[in-house]
Amino acid sequence: MLKKTISDATIKRLPKYYGYLKVLEDEGVEKVSSSSIATAVSVSASQVRQDFFGFESNGQQGYGYDVKKLKATLASILGVDKPHSMIIIGAGHIGGALAGHKGFAQEGFQLKALFDINVAQESIHGIPVYNISTLNDFLKENKVDIAVIATTKDSAQEVANTLVKGGVESIWNFAQIEINVPKNVVVENISMLESLLVLSYKASNKI
Amino acid sequence: MLKKTISDATIKRLPKYYGYLKVLEDEGVEKVSSSSIATAVSVSASQVRQDFFGFESNGQQGYGYDVKKLKATLASILGVDKPHSMIIIGAGHIGGALAGHKGFAQEGFQLKALFDINVAQESIHGIPVYNISTLNDFLKENKVDIAVIATTKDSAQEVANTLVKGGVESIWNFAQIEINVPKNVVVENISMLESLLVLSYKASNKI
Repeated sequence: MLKKTISDATIKRLPKYYGYLKVLEDEGVEKVSSSSIATAVSVSASQVRQDFFGFESNGQQGYGYDVKKLKATLASILGVDKPHSMIIIGAGHIGGALAGHKGFAQEGFQLKALFDINVAQESIHGIPVYNISTLNDFLKENKVDIAVIATTKDSAQEVANTLVKGGVESIWNFAQIEINVPKNVVVENISMLESLLVLSYKASNKI
Repeated sequence: MLKKTISDATIKRLPKYYGYLKVLEDEGVEKVSSSSIATAVSVSASQVRQDFFGFESNGQQGYGYDVKKLKATLASILGVDKPHSMIIIGAGHIGGALAGHKGFAQEGFQLKALFDINVAQESIHGIPVYNISTLNDFLKENKVDIAVIATTKDSAQEVANTLVKGGVESIWNFAQIEINVPKNVVVENISMLESLLVLSYKASNKI
């Protein structure tokens, strides 16, 4: 596959394309046009063609993209062509909700454990909950690809430090605070409140 | 305040700026420089100045921004200078987690009720849960500013139709599917899986 620099905006569209192609594949559709993809993902057809330009499974004029091939290409680009082990730190509302999310396992994100300062339940949605004091040892004994920080703001940085020390290189951060990590560690921040404020902005300004 | 067209990228930064200014205000800080804001929000200082250009509380060279004024300006732009009534459709993992989110009420988002096809509990985190069959009547009797769709994909469009018919003009959509609404209705989509896939992409490509 041709490697190319992909903009942040394109990166955010890739999961949407991927999601739509999964639906098509499930429905047994073999070919899809850039305009159909564009409609499904709410972008222009030329944007779709531009985003996919250079992909092996490049579409042919008047013929469209091969659904299976394009989906496989996107899976490889998104890194979901292989499984990832995952843990969640913080077994509160958000951590618990994430543990119950069925879509993650379907994409190969294998949730191994939750950790909390306060182990109220032995397991949540079948995933074991361990005391945070055991996180260090867990990381020594288990390869963890992705760690989710679903703690309070106050604990987030300390948790991040433990994760980084334990060799975790990808952090999905739900704590409403920026965390500092070394350059080799990738962080994706997600904030419910920020998303709600964007909605509130759009509603107030009717855009 | 000077009205101006704001780009999508800027809109996404506004809640971050707002969040940082709240922290500063809570700490009793009165003035802040664009470079401090830039560091906190991980953008360049010139980006901050550009984003705030035209604001009433525009910073002065070598003096910085007035924290209180700038926060008030951002609150007004984001529409959180007044309260919003909110309901959640779908009392599953996500709906339940959102009902427990303390940050929403602090910004004036007043959660009135949850609705579900299956009322397993009378209330979640103190918020009443009603049968979805009563949603129509609820919307007739109560002004709802924001509705959260936290249902399955399959139900999302039908729920959206009921909401729109009931006069709801802002929808926060957690269902992993695009919903079709009239032009006067604002929708903000949020997908956990898409965010996780972005992290997976970044980890796979080390960007």
